[in-house]
Amino acid sequence: MRETLAEWRPAIDEAIADLVPREVDPEYLEEFFGEPTYEYDSEGIQRALADPLWELLDRGGKRWRAVLFLVFIDAFGEDPADYLQYACIPEILHNGTIIVDDVEDEAAMRRGGPALHHVFDEDIALNAGNAMYFLPLKILTQDHADLPADRRLAAYEMLMDELNRTHLGQGMDICWHNEREVRVTPEQYLEMCACKTGCLGRIVARLAAIITDQPADVEEAVASYAELTAVAFQIGDDILDVENSLGRAGEFGKEFGNDVREGKKTLLVIHAMEESDPETAHRLQELLQDDDNTDEEILEALSILEEAGSIEYARERALGLAAEARGEIADLDFDPETTRKLEEFTEFVIDRDV
Amino acid sequence: MRETLAEWRPAIDEAIADLVPREVDPEYLEEFFGEPTYEYDSEGIQRALADPLWELLDRGGKRWRAVLFLVFIDAFGEDPADYLQYACIPEILHNGTIIVDDVEDEAAMRRGGPALHHVFDEDIALNAGNAMYFLPLKILTQDHADLPADRRLAAYEMLMDELNRTHLGQGMDICWHNEREVRVTPEQYLEMCACKTGCLGRIVARLAAIITDQPADVEEAVASYAELTAVAFQIGDDILDVENSLGRAGEFGKEFGNDVREGKKTLLVIHAMEESDPETAHRLQELLQDDDNTDEEILEALSILEEAGSIEYARERALGLAAEARGEIADLDFDPETTRKLEEFTEFVIDRDV
Repeated sequence: MRETLAEWRPAIDEAIADLVPREVDPEYLEEFFGEPTYEYDSEGIQRALADPLWELLDRGGKRWRAVLFLVFIDAFGEDPADYLQYACIPEILHNGTIIVDDVEDEAAMRRGGPALHHVFDEDIALNAGNAMYFLPLKILTQDHADLPADRRLAAYEMLMDELNRTHLGQGMDICWHNEREVRVTPEQYLEMCACKTGCLGRIVARLAAIITDQPADVEEAVASYAELTAVAFQIGDDILDVENSLGRAGEFGKEFGNDVREGKKTLLVIHAMEESDPETAHRLQELLQDDDNTDEEILEALSILEEAGSIEYARERALGLAAEARGEIADLDFDPETTRKLEEFTEFVIDRDV
Repeated sequence: MRETLAEWRPAIDEAIADLVPREVDPEYLEEFFGEPTYEYDSEGIQRALADPLWELLDRGGKRWRAVLFLVFIDAFGEDPADYLQYACIPEILHNGTIIVDDVEDEAAMRRGGPALHHVFDEDIALNAGNAMYFLPLKILTQDHADLPADRRLAAYEMLMDELNRTHLGQGMDICWHNEREVRVTPEQYLEMCACKTGCLGRIVARLAAIITDQPADVEEAVASYAELTAVAFQIGDDILDVENSLGRAGEFGKEFGNDVREGKKTLLVIHAMEESDPETAHRLQELLQDDDNTDEEILEALSILEEAGSIEYARERALGLAAEARGEIADLDFDPETTRKLEEFTEFVIDRDV
């Protein structure tokens, strides 16, 4: 999968640049957004849209949503090169959610630089993030690869299902974040991940299936694969934050004990609350809701998680989800090389360094 | 038009409550968003979605976008009562943009209460506003009034055009807001209004035309009517802010001299910058970019606008746009009562009190 990621990346970035060039001018604006009634201000749109978008994309990101889409297109017997524009849909959506989530979470950093709302004014960053929800959806109106009308409608209906659930997931996450109490169940936590992170994965898989006209059961199988993998990825993220903080994984990938400092109700926290004695559970909750933790307090919270066996629990669940994901695609008629790539991907999302 | 607004309002609010009930429960969530993979947290979704939405709707708003949609449906020979769900599309979109714009503009007040990001946490308000961009788009998947597939696809394609331009308009507006210099032309200002405010009007009109299968020229005529009316409305808003502040319209509808305090580059400001001598223009720019204006400074800025004849200029342009709007529908085959309502509406948007 790593080679596939590297191989496709330049072509994907070129396709994104066709949609939103680094330098916008009146001709581009007229072509993409339609004739103005009066007169566009290219200079303003450059700063409000193209600059934030490319600032974020140029910082990195693996473009794995676009590449996974192309892997599916290939698996369904079509030439990925013909569907590069569609690969941009989940990729730009994802980058849009990053900008908006960072505003909502008051994040300081993103991809090794300050979060976008610290580079641009917050209003500009936010509007650019929101614009990136709608820019990619316009791709479907452009008739790339002669997509028939019923497929385009199916794609829109699918996108509306998934993008609605994305906002449910984010709603649950930030709502819990603002609550003192840890009241959520592991099943609700998994649902939050399935909505917030999983739905973008589902878009990747379902879009490839819809565009290449796969039967409903195939579409559902790849969607479940992508959702399960994304949920496993999210739990992997939660584990990584704790492990890196405990110094097990060597150098710190993030700020030390980030999730505890933010008071995130991760699967590990939910598990530890259930498994610890009432006094310890109460102490963990206290540490999470504190706005300013000392490094000692962070380590105290982390060792509560460790002692409750929450790291192992979370790893078991993530591995179980990854196995389930592999099961979803086991019976599909993919060539062995594709199946290998997709299986490898479910492992990568848990056992990664960053 | 006033009677029509009052007449339809209860039915519109009922249709919105069918989409997002005041009290969400697992049955509703499953029906609207689909079966969860694991388990929804109704309590969190209540607070993250239903509470902010109804807090805003219950404060008022005339629902004129929904009513205008129903007037068009009626004008096109269909029964408005059959299309109430579709009337919610522009209405919920509009209320979503209000929440997001208020975050972007750091607005303090909305509809007589604190802006939503002051009532709820900012992350909750923002996510609810964004969710309201996608909730209404799902209505088209629900097959109300047996809408054929080609009409649903046309509606999606139209919505993607217009919602993309909405974000261009907001992008221009906030970009100018953050600039020291007033460099924008009247034509660019009108384009900003046409995108930011006009596109939601266009959605109202085009959705009614698409759903009832009107020919392309009729769709474009009502779209232009709605866009022109919305732009006239926006300019009316700018005039009202200055007139109320100068005490001409009696009691203040808003905080005194709001637009100047915010440094908004309104059509009046753009005109005054062009018409005033360099020294006065420079002073106006200085007053606009100041973060803390005294009441005397606000009055100074307002009298620069007054002396440059900018109020009359803006009124002339607004009246011109309203006349253009009436011209767009003059040749359509509407009954006289509908035409009267639509004509009246173009007047109301300029000569209103609040």
